[in-house]
Amino acid sequence: MARTVLITGAASGICRATADACRAAGDRVITVDMHDADIVADLTTAEGRATLVSEAERLAPEGLDAVLAGAGLSRADMPRETVAVNYFGAVATLEGLRPLLAKSARPRAVVICSTAAMLPGNDQLVDTCLAGDEAAALDIAAAAPRSVYPDSKRAIAKWLRRTAGSPEWAGSGILLNGVGPGVVETAMTAPMLKDPQMIEMIKLSNPMVVDGYAKPEEIAELLVFLLGYTNHYLVGQLIYIDGGTDVVMRPEQV
Amino acid sequence: MARTVLITGAASGICRATADACRAAGDRVITVDMHDADIVADLTTAEGRATLVSEAERLAPEGLDAVLAGAGLSRADMPRETVAVNYFGAVATLEGLRPLLAKSARPRAVVICSTAAMLPGNDQLVDTCLAGDEAAALDIAAAAPRSVYPDSKRAIAKWLRRTAGSPEWAGSGILLNGVGPGVVETAMTAPMLKDPQMIEMIKLSNPMVVDGYAKPEEIAELLVFLLGYTNHYLVGQLIYIDGGTDVVMRPEQV
Repeated sequence: MARTVLITGAASGICRATADACRAAGDRVITVDMHDADIVADLTTAEGRATLVSEAERLAPEGLDAVLAGAGLSRADMPRETVAVNYFGAVATLEGLRPLLAKSARPRAVVICSTAAMLPGNDQLVDTCLAGDEAAALDIAAAAPRSVYPDSKRAIAKWLRRTAGSPEWAGSGILLNGVGPGVVETAMTAPMLKDPQMIEMIKLSNPMVVDGYAKPEEIAELLVFLLGYTNHYLVGQLIYIDGGTDVVMRPEQV
Repeated sequence: MARTVLITGAASGICRATADACRAAGDRVITVDMHDADIVADLTTAEGRATLVSEAERLAPEGLDAVLAGAGLSRADMPRETVAVNYFGAVATLEGLRPLLAKSARPRAVVICSTAAMLPGNDQLVDTCLAGDEAAALDIAAAAPRSVYPDSKRAIAKWLRRTAGSPEWAGSGILLNGVGPGVVETAMTAPMLKDPQMIEMIKLSNPMVVDGYAKPEEIAELLVFLLGYTNHYLVGQLIYIDGGTDVVMRPEQV
């Protein structure tokens, strides 16, 4: 039977590739983005988050079978928006749509994290996100001396792990997992991939990069699997798909 | 194009279910076990391990596209054999068949670990395994006051993480990943699942068990995905498929 899958960030990159692959597999896809989407919503704002939920209820009153919280931003000049989308927007997406997921016979949810979450960062920012204090977190982000992207992704990874096993999620039969991509060729990473120093750093921790960076379709292969996973035991996992960066950087973690 | 997949432990349980699923997907499957298999070999012995490799070379001279190192044992009365198969047999399988994998255009390898690897255990046994001293490891196992199954699985999980990113594996384009099942209904776990105390303990750390323990076919769904994974970036991951035990026990690990 056709499944209804909602995907945020679906106008570009990994999420657009995933939307295409879900459609090709026969799913009904509801796309969410700031433009070119079924639901046009700015997930940095309370209004946009409310629009997401009300429009999803209108478009899928029977419920959602899967949600991909994929909208993400990595802009050094937009630290507040980066944290607002990558952490608070993702949490609002998943918490806001959880009642619609609960209507499905086989609900699945996936949040996109990042290998960048492993970079040493600002624990105060991460902790403030996890405490749910958005105003304070955005102020910390605005004052940060460097990119807050890794911190925003570490925060959402931690939220995933703290949340997936709870009564509201696993306890209600809703399988929530995370995927942490490494360097993927998208509009988001294009500026970074023009920096020779960055390219050298990536090579040091990515043995697979000899065959090129991943294309968005490659990450979509894993996301489609998780969004459609038939059985009931795969939950709370944060799967890095990064050409080996996780395992090269942290070989002792099991 | 049909792929050739070799699976150890294929006479029963998770590995038999995976062999069936691979065949259903059109793969050629070479089964390995102590009986009812294409290659009959006892992976506790040097002779059995040599037979595995020579027979695989004879049956698949063109190479192997995927290897599942799945043969495993959990017998409190057979501590030496448990460590010999679960750790040294798995390593011998993967290292011995690596040259055949290297012939494939898209080689994939998966080793079956276990959620049990998280249980506190005997680090001396784990370290002796990882040092490659089989005689000493089996002696430690024989003297152990409790089941060595968790230690054998922690050792192979650590081997996976130390090995997957190396020049011989990721560096050669061979994607090596691990899967850590929780409690699955197999012949291996049947005795444990008759113990009321054990059942209560499992419930505490497995929110999904309200829908029953996993069937072998459920773990096979993930294994088939990894053995056939089309793209090139998913490597060195240890994916627990355990009804939430990993995420419930270790929510802070990202």
